[in-house]
Amino acid sequence: MTTTRNPTAATSQVTVLGLGEMGSAIARTFVDRGHRTTVWNRTASRSTPLVESGATAAATAAEAVAASPLVIVCLLDNTAVEEVLASVGPAVAGKVLVNVTSGSAGQARANERWAREHGAEYIDGKIMGDPPYVGTPDVMFPFSGSRGAFDAHEPTLRELGAIAYHGEDAGLAAVEFMAQVAVGYELLIGYLHVLRLVQAEGVDVVEFTERVAGSVAMYPSLLTSMGKAVQSGEYAPDLGPLYVQAALMDDMIDHRESLGVEAVRMKEVKELMDRRIAGGHGDQGFSSLFELLGRPSRA
Amino acid sequence: MTTTRNPTAATSQVTVLGLGEMGSAIARTFVDRGHRTTVWNRTASRSTPLVESGATAAATAAEAVAASPLVIVCLLDNTAVEEVLASVGPAVAGKVLVNVTSGSAGQARANERWAREHGAEYIDGKIMGDPPYVGTPDVMFPFSGSRGAFDAHEPTLRELGAIAYHGEDAGLAAVEFMAQVAVGYELLIGYLHVLRLVQAEGVDVVEFTERVAGSVAMYPSLLTSMGKAVQSGEYAPDLGPLYVQAALMDDMIDHRESLGVEAVRMKEVKELMDRRIAGGHGDQGFSSLFELLGRPSRA
Ligand SMILES: NC(=O)c1ccc[n+]([C@@H]2O[C@H](COP(=O)([O-])OP(=O)(O)OC[C@H]3O[C@@H](n4cnc5c(N)ncnc54)[C@H](OP(=O)(O)O)[C@@H]3O)[C@@H](O)[C@H]2O)c1
Ligand SMILES: NC(=O)c1ccc[n+]([C@@H]2O[C@H](COP(=O)([O-])OP(=O)(O)OC[C@H]3O[C@@H](n4cnc5c(N)ncnc54)[C@H](OP(=O)(O)O)[C@@H]3O)[C@@H](O)[C@H]2O)c1
Repeated sequence: MTTTRNPTAATSQVTVLGLGEMGSAIARTFVDRGHRTTVWNRTASRSTPLVESGATAAATAAEAVAASPLVIVCLLDNTAVEEVLASVGPAVAGKVLVNVTSGSAGQARANERWAREHGAEYIDGKIMGDPPYVGTPDVMFPFSGSRGAFDAHEPTLRELGAIAYHGEDAGLAAVEFMAQVAVGYELLIGYLHVLRLVQAEGVDVVEFTERVAGSVAMYPSLLTSMGKAVQSGEYAPDLGPLYVQAALMDDMIDHRESLGVEAVRMKEVKELMDRRIAGGHGDQGFSSLFELLGRPSRA
Repeated sequence: MTTTRNPTAATSQVTVLGLGEMGSAIARTFVDRGHRTTVWNRTASRSTPLVESGATAAATAAEAVAASPLVIVCLLDNTAVEEVLASVGPAVAGKVLVNVTSGSAGQARANERWAREHGAEYIDGKIMGDPPYVGTPDVMFPFSGSRGAFDAHEPTLRELGAIAYHGEDAGLAAVEFMAQVAVGYELLIGYLHVLRLVQAEGVDVVEFTERVAGSVAMYPSLLTSMGKAVQSGEYAPDLGPLYVQAALMDDMIDHRESLGVEAVRMKEVKELMDRRIAGGHGDQGFSSLFELLGRPSRA
């Protein structure tokens, strides 16, 4: 109850449903910054340390929701969210629900419909970062949904980390989250396969990872320039012209296969490069492969 | 012929075979730094600007090789290297061949055998970076092969960029190159697929790329800590415990498929996560998926 970051914080009331690793970190941040915090968790014992720090534990999710105008929901997955919201029922009328549970854009849109039908405003949020860093700029929270509710509660939400509002469509925070997580997973699973290759060649894995970390530090600016190329359709020879890049792909694929390392993405890249070159675009760069990827759309 | 970076540079003699984008950038760097530079290119006209700057053009590759103790080979691919080396024949005896043409570890080892049989020392090198940055630390050159020859010519090679020696096995520079390029391509092809998803959802692509660039800037330290986890077999819950991460994979895969965006790596990640969790390791992190990847080896 000591330090507060903004003048309204000390008096704002907030409820947190779900006290797993992440929900506890969120509730802890609110308690530490002087918010009147009500908590609830299916397994009641997890509220003990928060109550010792000044939080109020509610006996049921409905009671917890009734206690505050702003309700943060942080559960394992959307199935848990649906179960808990169903148990809460009419208590949500007039509340602002902020659901930061990981899930899809479709689920966020469905949750928003549910909230509207029950007289609540809905904000969907996603969490990019680790629980110990909640409350610092190292955790990013994309939000989307009700603009009015977001603006009204922005000072409280800002306590949690680097927040950003992505638009009225409640699904947009999930789109951002899925897209960002996928970029990371693509890098990381590819990286783990490469570590097998490096290991098979007798290279010191830790030394390699230090070198590759140095190289990856150069990628953020490339990602930005590739984004501009994709947007404009003007493809400079990023990473060199495709006909030069393609010349090494067969070697790379052979090398991996000779060692028993999978090469699914490298074969795809080679095939896309070959098609771009055959189409007369061999002087363009890697980003031009975008042109060959299917053009999906929201039906 | 004006500025020189090190005292020996002004007197060192070097030959460059191949004056494409990259070979020209290499030859240009040597000329600008005051090395006595002999050049050769299959299409002779490409040597003109270098000759105007002070390089000497040789009429044949054999003459070019004869002119200097140190011979840099920078051609399109290994097929070109084999053709040009075959045309050079006995002129290589007593020379140090530094082949920086992209190619596989096996090709590097075969080139080294060829050099040894012809009385030359062999260093294999690979180039990570763009031609305009040759001569700056933004281009990395892994080298491997003859240690003695590398040490003798290190001051000259260092003119080219950030150089590193990876070991006597001539294939090691190619291993480093293939591994590093693959990590980049895994990130970039995955990224292009995600841009299709983002575009389909109506998100501004350029704004997204700026945000994702910010996130990717956090990955180098994660790559290093994952490398240590892989080496030690002690897997902290990096990116959260697997059972939490896995809970969102079905949503992510469904989301992609509903939009017509491919999900091959995401399905693989999900399947690996599920197997790790079933094996009782759901509290470990992403890096522990390494344990499930095949254990390849150099036969
Ligand atoms: N941990 C991370 O690093 C991280 C990072 C980014 C995002 N997230 C997201 O944050 C959310 C919470 O993750 P976490 O790390 O806190 O997970 P966790 O530690 O496993 O906690 C899960 C929480 O969900 C509750 N729960 C699960 N099923 C339920 C049900 N059917 N009914 C009621 N409550 C239920 C659990 O209650 P009990 O205590 O009763 O089991 C617990 O409070 C997830 O969506 C996750 O993807 C986590
Ligand atoms: N450009 C980049 O961004 C980049 C980056 C990293 C690594 N690299 C590597 O650097 C090497 C050279 O690339 P580059 O950009 O300079 O390519 P480039 O501009 O296409 O030049 C190719 C060179 O190879 C020569 N060549 C091709 N086939 C030949 C043959 N059968 N016999 C004799 N010479 C032949 C060409 O001679 P002609 O002029 O007579 O055609 C030309 O000098 C490649 O291995 C590439 O992977 C390039």
